[in-house]
Amino acid sequence: MPHLSRKAAEMPASPIRKLMPYANIARAAGKNILHLNIGQPDIKTPEVVLERMKNIKREVIEYSSSEGFPEYRTKLSAYYKKHGIPVETEHIMITTGGSEALTFTMMTCFDPGDEVIIPEPYYANYSGFSTMAGVTVQPITATIKNGFALPKAEAFERLINEKTKGILICNPGNPTGYLYSKEEIQAIADLCRTHDLYLIADEVYREFCYDGAQPFSAFNLKDMDENTILIDSVSKRYSMCGARIGALITRNKAVYNAAMKFAQARLSPPTFGQIAAEAALETPQSYFDDVITEYSGRRDFLVDGLNKIPGVFCPKPSGAFYCMAQLPIDSSDKFCQWLLEDFSFENETVMLAPGSGFYITKGQGEQEVRLAYVLNKEDLRRALIILEKALEAYSGRTI
Amino acid sequence: MPHLSRKAAEMPASPIRKLMPYANIARAAGKNILHLNIGQPDIKTPEVVLERMKNIKREVIEYSSSEGFPEYRTKLSAYYKKHGIPVETEHIMITTGGSEALTFTMMTCFDPGDEVIIPEPYYANYSGFSTMAGVTVQPITATIKNGFALPKAEAFERLINEKTKGILICNPGNPTGYLYSKEEIQAIADLCRTHDLYLIADEVYREFCYDGAQPFSAFNLKDMDENTILIDSVSKRYSMCGARIGALITRNKAVYNAAMKFAQARLSPPTFGQIAAEAALETPQSYFDDVITEYSGRRDFLVDGLNKIPGVFCPKPSGAFYCMAQLPIDSSDKFCQWLLEDFSFENETVMLAPGSGFYITKGQGEQEVRLAYVLNKEDLRRALIILEKALEAYSGRTI
Repeated sequence: MPHLSRKAAEMPASPIRKLMPYANIARAAGKNILHLNIGQPDIKTPEVVLERMKNIKREVIEYSSSEGFPEYRTKLSAYYKKHGIPVETEHIMITTGGSEALTFTMMTCFDPGDEVIIPEPYYANYSGFSTMAGVTVQPITATIKNGFALPKAEAFERLINEKTKGILICNPGNPTGYLYSKEEIQAIADLCRTHDLYLIADEVYREFCYDGAQPFSAFNLKDMDENTILIDSVSKRYSMCGARIGALITRNKAVYNAAMKFAQARLSPPTFGQIAAEAALETPQSYFDDVITEYSGRRDFLVDGLNKIPGVFCPKPSGAFYCMAQLPIDSSDKFCQWLLEDFSFENETVMLAPGSGFYITKGQGEQEVRLAYVLNKEDLRRALIILEKALEAYSGRTI
Repeated sequence: MPHLSRKAAEMPASPIRKLMPYANIARAAGKNILHLNIGQPDIKTPEVVLERMKNIKREVIEYSSSEGFPEYRTKLSAYYKKHGIPVETEHIMITTGGSEALTFTMMTCFDPGDEVIIPEPYYANYSGFSTMAGVTVQPITATIKNGFALPKAEAFERLINEKTKGILICNPGNPTGYLYSKEEIQAIADLCRTHDLYLIADEVYREFCYDGAQPFSAFNLKDMDENTILIDSVSKRYSMCGARIGALITRNKAVYNAAMKFAQARLSPPTFGQIAAEAALETPQSYFDDVITEYSGRRDFLVDGLNKIPGVFCPKPSGAFYCMAQLPIDSSDKFCQWLLEDFSFENETVMLAPGSGFYITKGQGEQEVRLAYVLNKEDLRRALIILEKALEAYSGRTI
């Protein structure tokens, strides 16, 4: 039998995938599972999108240009400007989800063996895209006791060496929900300028900011035109993860042109998804207002409820729809598996994402779990009760 | 300014992209361009697909499973069986076009520095996918005078060394239209078994076979379960290139499971495209009958017409919708550029794909061009006249 590649061996399995067999065990046992583990919002896709799909006039579902339909790119530029981010049409390359934008960026900017610094905990698939490009992730640990604020510049400086070629941030963050301040983004930019590094800013949760907080886009940084690459996606914004439409956005023409060669090899981003994404730009403000009201209500309810459980600590995040909670447990992997395999309360249990899966520093995240508040408040209320009961029953409880 | 990767530098530009600026010059000069350079069919997408898209009942456009919707995979298995190809649901991973299936395959099966043998001329983007995975293509030249038949096993044997890990074929072939015989496929399989190589068979043009010819699928090979990976796509079959739905198909469980890790990192293939592709499976046989009648008529008309032009030779292909023609010219790149930049007949010209772009052996294909018969017969008739007039006028004519 022919061999498999080293990359295939090194590709990390997602922290949630590992739990799937245990979710199946729970289901087979007739337990209801409250899924706080996933990033698929339960919010409806905007009506304007669903309507547009019913009225496609095309008779041939053709390729678009490799960089995406010009009309969509033009309208997308207007969207960014409306949000105070000066993105021109020619800066935008439409991609198959934010995932492909990240893959193209890694392949374009980094050589095998190069290093990219990513504050951990981070979105686990960043490790996968890095592995695909042969890039090594240097994690810099943000701590839950500081609410996952950006580590100090000195901590970055200690990691930077001749192999370091970039810093990747997610803002607002998955899995933390942390929203970087303008000053934090500027501190990263200073590092990038000083050490000639790319700044890859994944801003797919831009519109999920609470308490009136305004996200500061990396595209608004001064003197960073050659360094900054913005990653975006329509998946979360319009609750249409399945459209698979994202964007790679940069003012660096050399990066854009080089990334275009990867884009051309795969011909084009999805045509149907682009039609949907273009329609989504007409989503009324009331949709977002409702979403923000709903999510911030859920966040308050979930985070306040978590902090009331003895031994639990959860900083209140300002963005995205996740929070990381510290639990009095020995191992987040064991605990999350146990919740599915061995625990139930009133024939129900919760599925959480083990914190360890969002760190690559060994031993980090063992007492943390990620919760996505993609369930309604009644479900969240029961989830909180189940978690409290579970922590009382769990044999690996530490305090 | 931060540096670009070596891969970005090595990524080949498509042979057609290089001509784009000259097409713009032609357009600016008011010339009509007959496009024989592209692989986007002019055939309509099946009505059943367009209708289904108007009747999507989903309210949330969610991710599918990373391996694709189970219903679609099950129905797709039935499609293959109907075509005499024993593919089970669990062999099928839905991908974002055939392009992504090839990328996953390259990343899963080959390490940087490994070699894959590909008969040339070949689909230019194979070079791009190889570059992304750091794989070296070893070309084995098929000649136009043999109608692009498979080179002899001895020629493969001479190329195989300890770095060789696979053979990639396209059947029916782009750009040649050549349909491999069962014996030719078996000869490749013998090589793969002897030398423990993967056989990657790109069969996206399966249903474009003429004169009653039946394609022999690599998935019907005996004792090749561990070696064979089938690449497929709905793009050409249903004239819906923009759906971006393909498949990676293998009985090798280790390859499947490893490729799944890449699939999971990018979350899911496009949801809308999968809805369209599932609907497309209900396309009536009459659609394909009409397409085959249309294309084989065009093929006969074009190939016969080419062979009537003095100094031109074009073997008649049995599949796909391309042909490669040998022209009495010094350089296919120069000629194709000249056609756009400097030539017109009755204010019209033709855009062709330079043959050199489909070879990586230096000097090959200089007298060849690829023509896609994706135009109606009236357009093809004018294209033949323009080509004949152009060859009379071209200063780089060789005979």
